[in-house]
Amino acid sequence: MSSQEQYYIGIDGGGTKCKAILQNSQGETLGEATAGPANPLRGISLAENSIIEAAQQALSNANLPISLAQLYAGIGLAGVNLPSFNAKMQQWRHPFKAMHLTTDLHIACLGAHNGQDGAIMIAGTGSSGVSVVNQQYFEIGGHGFSVGDKGSGAWLGLTAISQSLEALDGIGHRHSLVDQVLEFLKVNSAHELVELLVGKNPAFFAKLSPIVIQAAKAHDPMALAIVQDGAAYLSNMARRLLANQPPRLSMIGGLAKYIAEWLDEDVKQHLQPPVHSPEIGAILLARTLTSTVREA
Amino acid sequence: MSSQEQYYIGIDGGGTKCKAILQNSQGETLGEATAGPANPLRGISLAENSIIEAAQQALSNANLPISLAQLYAGIGLAGVNLPSFNAKMQQWRHPFKAMHLTTDLHIACLGAHNGQDGAIMIAGTGSSGVSVVNQQYFEIGGHGFSVGDKGSGAWLGLTAISQSLEALDGIGHRHSLVDQVLEFLKVNSAHELVELLVGKNPAFFAKLSPIVIQAAKAHDPMALAIVQDGAAYLSNMARRLLANQPPRLSMIGGLAKYIAEWLDEDVKQHLQPPVHSPEIGAILLARTLTSTVREA
Repeated sequence: MSSQEQYYIGIDGGGTKCKAILQNSQGETLGEATAGPANPLRGISLAENSIIEAAQQALSNANLPISLAQLYAGIGLAGVNLPSFNAKMQQWRHPFKAMHLTTDLHIACLGAHNGQDGAIMIAGTGSSGVSVVNQQYFEIGGHGFSVGDKGSGAWLGLTAISQSLEALDGIGHRHSLVDQVLEFLKVNSAHELVELLVGKNPAFFAKLSPIVIQAAKAHDPMALAIVQDGAAYLSNMARRLLANQPPRLSMIGGLAKYIAEWLDEDVKQHLQPPVHSPEIGAILLARTLTSTVREA
Repeated sequence: MSSQEQYYIGIDGGGTKCKAILQNSQGETLGEATAGPANPLRGISLAENSIIEAAQQALSNANLPISLAQLYAGIGLAGVNLPSFNAKMQQWRHPFKAMHLTTDLHIACLGAHNGQDGAIMIAGTGSSGVSVVNQQYFEIGGHGFSVGDKGSGAWLGLTAISQSLEALDGIGHRHSLVDQVLEFLKVNSAHELVELLVGKNPAFFAKLSPIVIQAAKAHDPMALAIVQDGAAYLSNMARRLLANQPPRLSMIGGLAKYIAEWLDEDVKQHLQPPVHSPEIGAILLARTLTSTVREA
């Protein structure tokens, strides 16, 4: 092992978990780990602790005699598109040799296009998009559950529940999706359903999304209208991203492979598979730090 | 003052405040008071404390030498339509001579129709409806913010913000409502808007509803579509209530007088003004306790 060896840690921190990957200069993966939530909106200390925990775990898995202080860190975090949370995270007295902080969307885009220009849409628990073209960073959607995130898993679930409640109230037809929703959630009435919802987070609503997609495939009119409405939003998002002329466009996230077929044809023909994961995107970002630090 | 004199306390407990009114057998109002939130979903003890505080304050305003233990209480509470919260409140070792507990909707309906059969729609921060016909109690809507409460003040505000964010993202036209929303909330961008929304409750969103109504009146297409969509839901709710053949239908709540003109004509012609307040409805309910207790 050369004394000149550089180590890079790539961190993808989201609302439910924080993933870390450790690589050397040759791009060999030495360790990986997953820790708890790292969205600064849920608490700055929580995010910082999850990042440190994931990084330490990855180091320990690699079984190398080095410390966090020797790592160049590339970190992508949900929530740091918001100026005040970005400022708070930048003030962090982090334990790394150097830290490059950006959004979770940015590292996902870097990963999907192997560090080159491109655009991505994320359709998972939430929905959002980003393009990086000629060093211009452009973000769209991802404004959070209930005001935004249309077409996402959480939005599909929420909309299905909302329309089911109307149907149970006698407003609108009781399509089979209504009974599938009740069955999946193991409740028998609007009252039981509403009680179940108290304090539930986006991840809870997203669990319903496979039911909605499945019902849409089975031509349930209510499910079909919901999925088409969500997909129309994602198609609009894609067109706005394509207006920036990214060389590539990918869609990632847990819902991506299910919702893709409902996108408009002009959007579908632009979709290409992502090359790497967001964590690798974070590594690619961390690598830019080596030159930056050497230049300094 | 006869030793046979009966005293009634009517309580209307909602998510933001708890109102109490004290009357004697002759229906004379002796005292009134307002205390803090009394929605059991926000905490059973909080609700119980707010009820006691409002009742004690009303008694103290009446300046009568009697205690809570001498009052027949009619109490209408948000949230007790949910079986588990109803059960918890029924277990309360309350300080009154007797307590008749029901929903805030029920007492509003009793008040609006002077204790007789009828139906009401509430369009305020939230939206919901109830009919009481031939002792059949029927409830509709009011399933809470984000899954329900369509056509309410909070829903109008949320929908305006959600569509403004899409317009700011370059999806859809930037109608003048978008700039009015930004101006009202004193923010300049989608990012600032999203930051402002963190942790906000329905009352925050409802504050935007006058802006939306005003823009709809000024023929802003985005505002018009939102208000018409909300009003269409309320018209459907009214028709479902009218199917129960209530002798009267009233619409109450802070948004009622603004949204009424957007309702469908067939619904509008059924609307009649409410006779009394919900607190008086609670008194009317409390009065039924006297006979019940005497019978016992």
